[in-house]
Amino acid sequence: MFVDPAQERAMRRALALAARARGETSPNPVVGCVVLDAAGQVAGEGYHAYAGGPHAEVVALREAAGRAEGGTLLVTLEPCDHQGRTGPCTEAVIEAGVRRVVYAVADPHPVAGGGARRLAEAGVEVEEGLLAAEAERVNAEWLTCTRLGRPHVTWKFAATLDGRSAAADGSSQWITGPEARHDVHELRARCDAIVAGSGTVLADDPRLTVRGVHRHDHRLTPRRPLRVVADTRARTPLTSRVLDDEAPTLIAVAEDTDATALEGRVAVVRLPRDDGGLDLTALLAELRERQIVSVLLEGGPTLAGSFVAAGLVDRVVAYLAPRLLGAGPAALGDAGVATLAAAHHLEIDDVTRIGTDLRITAVRPAVETPTRPVAARRET
Amino acid sequence: MFVDPAQERAMRRALALAARARGETSPNPVVGCVVLDAAGQVAGEGYHAYAGGPHAEVVALREAAGRAEGGTLLVTLEPCDHQGRTGPCTEAVIEAGVRRVVYAVADPHPVAGGGARRLAEAGVEVEEGLLAAEAERVNAEWLTCTRLGRPHVTWKFAATLDGRSAAADGSSQWITGPEARHDVHELRARCDAIVAGSGTVLADDPRLTVRGVHRHDHRLTPRRPLRVVADTRARTPLTSRVLDDEAPTLIAVAEDTDATALEGRVAVVRLPRDDGGLDLTALLAELRERQIVSVLLEGGPTLAGSFVAAGLVDRVVAYLAPRLLGAGPAALGDAGVATLAAAHHLEIDDVTRIGTDLRITAVRPAVETPTRPVAARRET
Ligand SMILES: NC(=O)c1ccc[n+]([C@@H]2O[C@H](COP(=O)([O-])OP(=O)(O)OC[C@H]3O[C@@H](n4cnc5c(N)ncnc54)[C@H](OP(=O)(O)O)[C@@H]3O)[C@@H](O)[C@H]2O)c1
Ligand SMILES: NC(=O)c1ccc[n+]([C@@H]2O[C@H](COP(=O)([O-])OP(=O)(O)OC[C@H]3O[C@@H](n4cnc5c(N)ncnc54)[C@H](OP(=O)(O)O)[C@@H]3O)[C@@H](O)[C@H]2O)c1
Repeated sequence: MFVDPAQERAMRRALALAARARGETSPNPVVGCVVLDAAGQVAGEGYHAYAGGPHAEVVALREAAGRAEGGTLLVTLEPCDHQGRTGPCTEAVIEAGVRRVVYAVADPHPVAGGGARRLAEAGVEVEEGLLAAEAERVNAEWLTCTRLGRPHVTWKFAATLDGRSAAADGSSQWITGPEARHDVHELRARCDAIVAGSGTVLADDPRLTVRGVHRHDHRLTPRRPLRVVADTRARTPLTSRVLDDEAPTLIAVAEDTDATALEGRVAVVRLPRDDGGLDLTALLAELRERQIVSVLLEGGPTLAGSFVAAGLVDRVVAYLAPRLLGAGPAALGDAGVATLAAAHHLEIDDVTRIGTDLRITAVRPAVETPTRPVAARRET
Repeated sequence: MFVDPAQERAMRRALALAARARGETSPNPVVGCVVLDAAGQVAGEGYHAYAGGPHAEVVALREAAGRAEGGTLLVTLEPCDHQGRTGPCTEAVIEAGVRRVVYAVADPHPVAGGGARRLAEAGVEVEEGLLAAEAERVNAEWLTCTRLGRPHVTWKFAATLDGRSAAADGSSQWITGPEARHDVHELRARCDAIVAGSGTVLADDPRLTVRGVHRHDHRLTPRRPLRVVADTRARTPLTSRVLDDEAPTLIAVAEDTDATALEGRVAVVRLPRDDGGLDLTALLAELRERQIVSVLLEGGPTLAGSFVAAGLVDRVVAYLAPRLLGAGPAALGDAGVATLAAAHHLEIDDVTRIGTDLRITAVRPAVETPTRPVAARRET
């Protein structure tokens, strides 16, 4: 298939613009946009910087002004056709007299979607799929959340090269070096909620806050993702650090648990039980209700095993230290897999050296999306 | 420090030439050489292709002929000063009238070493250390073997991203894909001996042969590394595949074990015992006696743990598959480490995607070697 190099260049630029706001736009997607004038020159650029802020298309069209007429608009996500906090982008595109719209990924949102058809019906030439894989990647959290109706889940763990998350005596601070530990804070800063099991809270008393990470935009308030403890039996001690004021916290307990003491101190949600503890689908639904798009699951092994077993892990980020222990617990507990053929399959997405350690990112195998023209609704 | 770019280029070429013969020169090192004429132009190149064949310097000088006079010879290893199957390289260099010799790494060999000083005494300008780290790498097996007086040991394992070498029911074929399995045959083809524990032989009946790998030179006979089983109690069944005719085999048993049945079929060596089984230092010494420079340790976890505990692993090659099991044995058994601070430290040397899997190579932390001029022995 022929791809105009100027258009591909423009879409790559739009992707880079979108990436600037990763982790900043929740519960909205990240979107980048470039407008080329009729001669194919860049006339305007923009990205969606934060929820409630102007959409990428509107920013780029504003910059392009009159030069948008007869031009091409490239955008990482299908333009919305929906009157939200801002007007529908389709209107802005049509009004500006844009001749052609190329977007990377279709908007799966039941309300905001359908923009492409609206544009085609207004006589705009529309194409879908240019650099779709890259656009899926930059927007993975939001797309997963919108498609599956539950937050995107990243499970993070640290282990030695031989797969141990702690030594035989339980010592685990620190398996990885300072650079890898800083990188975890970058992960935290980009998610909406950080989830841990009661076992980890009792064993390590972690803070689960973002520390030492600067925001990419100009706002001074650091992001404070919601801290969530899966705590069936309300065992979280009242002196735990997760109950301090550094960030909001939600303790999830079973419906039949007496959590009176905790309820006086912190937000508590009651959920149905499942085999291993709480019903994790119900937990994610509860988080979705609270506008949570992306979850960082920080373990421990028991809770991570339940998430994997339930098919609720979309991405794994493994920090591997080049050390050998030969004993000690593994990072992942029982995930309902008895034999090799039943293993959960992933695909390696990225491998990066972080200080002296290695960060391996693996994701669910990707779905192929071919480029295709979008036609107006046929009259039948 | 100033490095002449032409010399650095020539040394890089010498390294590439040396790498061609990796795994082919045992018990000799791999060596590459480039001769620049007095004007700095490449006049000759060569590498040591197999034990008994001409040395790299001799090949390169032969090609350079008269142009070597007043020129510079760059070689990955200090030229030998030793009359072996071929004459000493120092003589050839001096006779050719070379003005300057630059070598990457000093020859630690007690007999062949000392070439640099011999050259300096003959009035040749000598420098050590250019691209030393790269030259250490290409010759790691031979340098380790010569310095430590025991074969270089690479431990190879395959595991899932969560560190499991088999599923809960023991199934482990195949954790990694066909490309990674082929890569293991490349590893085997480059080593002199393949070592496994009796546990692996009893459980898997592996062949431990090189299959599907083509040699890089013109000889047709495939390499057939020695197969070695650490079998304290002589439990290797007489019907085992390691006893077939595909490659030579050595069974190592304890001094006090009755191995009469095996002795009728295969070479058997008797070794002292150690805590976990056989004394592994004695095993390696025995292999060194048999001209073995490099050993590929293929496990299982128990034997690998003993090797790691004894500090006898120089390189780890981990094939990680992007799968999650959550249960099943780890790749490394007890390695005498009780707490995190006592973990065995390595350094990541290389990370490569092999098919859908990842190959991580980690080595002992490197020693820094600065470039330095070599002076003639001072008269005192
Ligand atoms: N290396 C790493 O990356 C890393 C990361 C985190 C933790 N860790 C280590 O992990 C250890 C703690 O691990 P852990 O496995 O004991 O604790 P965990 O996984 O943090 O918590 C497990 C507990 O969560 C509760 N839970 C609620 N719903 C659940 C569900 N659906 N499935 C499973 N559990 C559910 C259960 O307790 P209740 O029924 O009482 O609620 C369960 O016992 C610590 O030593 C910590 O250092 C390591
Ligand atoms: N995923 C992988 O990369 C991989 C690779 C290889 C094997 N495996 C798996 O590993 C399993 C077998 O593992 P394993 O641990 O039972 O067997 P193993 O490590 O192959 O063999 C252990 C046995 O070696 C003998 N041995 C001799 N000297 C020793 C010493 N110094 N230290 C330790 N052992 C010594 C001992 O038996 P004796 O005293 O009777 O001689 C010991 O029981 C199999 O299931 C196999 O599939 C996996």
